[in-house]
Amino acid sequence: MSKIITVSREFGSGGRELGKRLSDHLGFAYYDREILEELAKEEDTSEWLTQNLPEQNFAAAIPLHFGRSFSVYQATATQQTVKLMIAEQKLLCHLADRGNCVIVGRGAAALLDQWKPFSIFVYADMPSKLARCRERAPESEHLSDREMIRQIKQVDAQRAKRIQWSTGVKWGDRKGYQLCINTSGMSIKTLSAALADYARTVFADGK
Amino acid sequence: MSKIITVSREFGSGGRELGKRLSDHLGFAYYDREILEELAKEEDTSEWLTQNLPEQNFAAAIPLHFGRSFSVYQATATQQTVKLMIAEQKLLCHLADRGNCVIVGRGAAALLDQWKPFSIFVYADMPSKLARCRERAPESEHLSDREMIRQIKQVDAQRAKRIQWSTGVKWGDRKGYQLCINTSGMSIKTLSAALADYARTVFADGK
Repeated sequence: MSKIITVSREFGSGGRELGKRLSDHLGFAYYDREILEELAKEEDTSEWLTQNLPEQNFAAAIPLHFGRSFSVYQATATQQTVKLMIAEQKLLCHLADRGNCVIVGRGAAALLDQWKPFSIFVYADMPSKLARCRERAPESEHLSDREMIRQIKQVDAQRAKRIQWSTGVKWGDRKGYQLCINTSGMSIKTLSAALADYARTVFADGK
Repeated sequence: MSKIITVSREFGSGGRELGKRLSDHLGFAYYDREILEELAKEEDTSEWLTQNLPEQNFAAAIPLHFGRSFSVYQATATQQTVKLMIAEQKLLCHLADRGNCVIVGRGAAALLDQWKPFSIFVYADMPSKLARCRERAPESEHLSDREMIRQIKQVDAQRAKRIQWSTGVKWGDRKGYQLCINTSGMSIKTLSAALADYARTVFADGK
């Protein structure tokens, strides 16, 4: 069976970099949102929809907090989002079957449960997340600390909603992960090397 | 500055064994409740009490959920518990000053904050905790699964209350720890070896 590492993360915690570096250390394939969305666009969701939602009114199945609205534009956009999400979930299973990989985001820990992934949640305190966001922001961005903190919280709230809705799992609840890592004040480069060794041991122990 | 590792843990998660093995791997001193209570009995708390609680009615400072009662016996027992707790806290600081160590329990992560400890929270799913408790139970113990689960939950609830009261920190909240480790289905022996390497890297990175 493939060895799968999933990385869930708070925005600004360095989880994505950690995932990428982990994949480099271990020689695993690497997938994150951008890569998965690109691949998913090519997938056909119609067959999956026929098999899995035969009785349901597709629009009614979308929870209110997920963007339902009287606006036709928004309703269409939400349908597309959900279709893309379904295609992504199909894709994740294909990729997990194909070979060892690190997957960042997309609720992969819960979705790929049957592969018994080594699931990681990455978090940090707000000053660390703020510093990391500042460091990576384009020069054109002129947000105050307060605005940036609001954005960080917004992204995480969206992630929590998305994961809760698509997998039924509470995002960030330690029970859903095998390891939760606080990156506050730490170098992701150093942590990823240590974590790669840790993951090797975990996989050797029967995962 | 001394290198300090603190281990908080759910009952039955194997956290204590993990802490002991970690200390062996790293050559650190090891302290847990039994050792600390023995040492604390020899400490004199009167000076600390005079310095830190001059204005307070000591009995009134004890929260209701911590065992206050109309019974004289219970009130005395609680005062002794609190005195012991204070002595322990003094002791923890002495021990942290003295050299590298692993401390299991006692809210050490929060109490030794200024030493910037590498703080670990160890947890597991209920079937794993139940299996571990069964394995270690004396032959004379004949609890049903249901009774054992109730006891596991009770111990954890007591720990949570104690930590919340003595440190103001929410027990088990990932923000209070640097690493949260799920030991479900894992060998503590294997995990401790991997974790020792991880800790070495964390300390080398400036902790």
